[in-house]
Amino acid sequence: MLLKFTKMHGLGNDFVVVDLITQRFNLKPHHVRKIADRNFGVGCDQLLVVEAPSRPDVDFRYRIFNAEGSEVEQCGNGARCFARFVRDKKLTGNNPIRVETAGGIISLEIDEQKRVRVDMGAPILEPDAIPFIADARATTYTLEADGRDYTVSAISMGNPHVVLQVDDTRYAPVATLGPILEAHGRFPKRVNVGFMQVLDRQRFRLRVFERGVGETLACGSGACAAMVAGVQRGLLDSNATAELNGGELILSWQGEGHPVIMTGPATTVFEGQVRI
Amino acid sequence: MLLKFTKMHGLGNDFVVVDLITQRFNLKPHHVRKIADRNFGVGCDQLLVVEAPSRPDVDFRYRIFNAEGSEVEQCGNGARCFARFVRDKKLTGNNPIRVETAGGIISLEIDEQKRVRVDMGAPILEPDAIPFIADARATTYTLEADGRDYTVSAISMGNPHVVLQVDDTRYAPVATLGPILEAHGRFPKRVNVGFMQVLDRQRFRLRVFERGVGETLACGSGACAAMVAGVQRGLLDSNATAELNGGELILSWQGEGHPVIMTGPATTVFEGQVRI
Repeated sequence: MLLKFTKMHGLGNDFVVVDLITQRFNLKPHHVRKIADRNFGVGCDQLLVVEAPSRPDVDFRYRIFNAEGSEVEQCGNGARCFARFVRDKKLTGNNPIRVETAGGIISLEIDEQKRVRVDMGAPILEPDAIPFIADARATTYTLEADGRDYTVSAISMGNPHVVLQVDDTRYAPVATLGPILEAHGRFPKRVNVGFMQVLDRQRFRLRVFERGVGETLACGSGACAAMVAGVQRGLLDSNATAELNGGELILSWQGEGHPVIMTGPATTVFEGQVRI
Repeated sequence: MLLKFTKMHGLGNDFVVVDLITQRFNLKPHHVRKIADRNFGVGCDQLLVVEAPSRPDVDFRYRIFNAEGSEVEQCGNGARCFARFVRDKKLTGNNPIRVETAGGIISLEIDEQKRVRVDMGAPILEPDAIPFIADARATTYTLEADGRDYTVSAISMGNPHVVLQVDDTRYAPVATLGPILEAHGRFPKRVNVGFMQVLDRQRFRLRVFERGVGETLACGSGACAAMVAGVQRGLLDSNATAELNGGELILSWQGEGHPVIMTGPATTVFEGQVRI
């Protein structure tokens, strides 16, 4: 059959979005791999699927598949594209849009500039829950790697993050220190590694070495983790802008127990149909 | 405007094909870069453009742009996709199709299995014309690199190639020896490096380290150069199949002064339209 799709991106993190409400198709992992392949298929980081909800109090079911076919719980850049897609396709008039994901229910709100505001949930700071091996919870920890001591924050946004402060992200050792910390023994499930340069109390730069991937254009959960680290260290106010390789995100965090709110763009690149 | 395009590939070497006969658009390098970008655009190795011919004895003008926006003379995998595109879109009923390129006129013929046969021109064997620094022309040369002597063929198919015979392409040092030979001082314009394993007189495997790119899924001109090297060394008959990473090509070469004929698939992946 011919499957209609929309190619979108959020700060360069790119997606093929498929509406499986108006189209009927039994999507299998081998279809995902074929569609996601950048040479033989359409090409994307993740495939996003719009499905009818399984419960009455939400608008849609939002499913996320990695390029290799596995289903994952959460993707912040994808959530923004999902909201733009269901709005532009007139699949709902609701705002905010309530969406069920494999990681729980999330709320997506579209503002007047068509940016999307995503509630990313409250950060997890307990070492055991991150998971991170530490004697006691602290704002910063000393992490030894490669014969040196690093001062880091350890935070989970549903996935584990370690955040280091640097003087200039342009010269940060992302490619060398990134993979060393990613596999550090004190992070039993490995970790995403963020290198943050604080520009002023409302603005920071960030480069992220993503777990199992390498450096990416924009890691939404990494921006949230860096925001929490910056606020906790007294370097950032409760509203700040993150400059990532792929563009900017606006972050808001009112302190422990509160969710991190992430606002950013979602861009439609093209519409297509692929034989599958 | 909304630009209609078709995404195609030839053995994984992938293309965005745009018909600028029925659509009017002044394509600039920044448009090419935007379209070719795999995260922010459609994504492709090269953009292929169908234009009206500038002379009466050909059917089309075929232009090729690399992802970074520069125009190039020739692309064998692209030529097959070009032929399938103009046939499938019913832009011509002619077969063979005569096409003008920046590198000269080429002839493309579509067979009953919808494979495309491309006349890749005669190989250039004179060292000065490859260009390759050698005392005299020979079937094989001894090339010193990294303290070792390698027996190689040196051939130009419009672009320079060096071909080495190996026992098993799976264990060939493509990633290590490839970049060393690519930049070897005896190839003043650098060189594409092919590692060929002869399976029998009608079949060989090939991996190619492409100049300025690295290892690719399928290098059409590299397959032609390896075919010529194999025939000249008495290892291959005048018709043979090349197994590349991305799939198979059928090659034919009747000896010096004759063109190399390459036959292979061209696959349409999807149709789309992009705002530009």
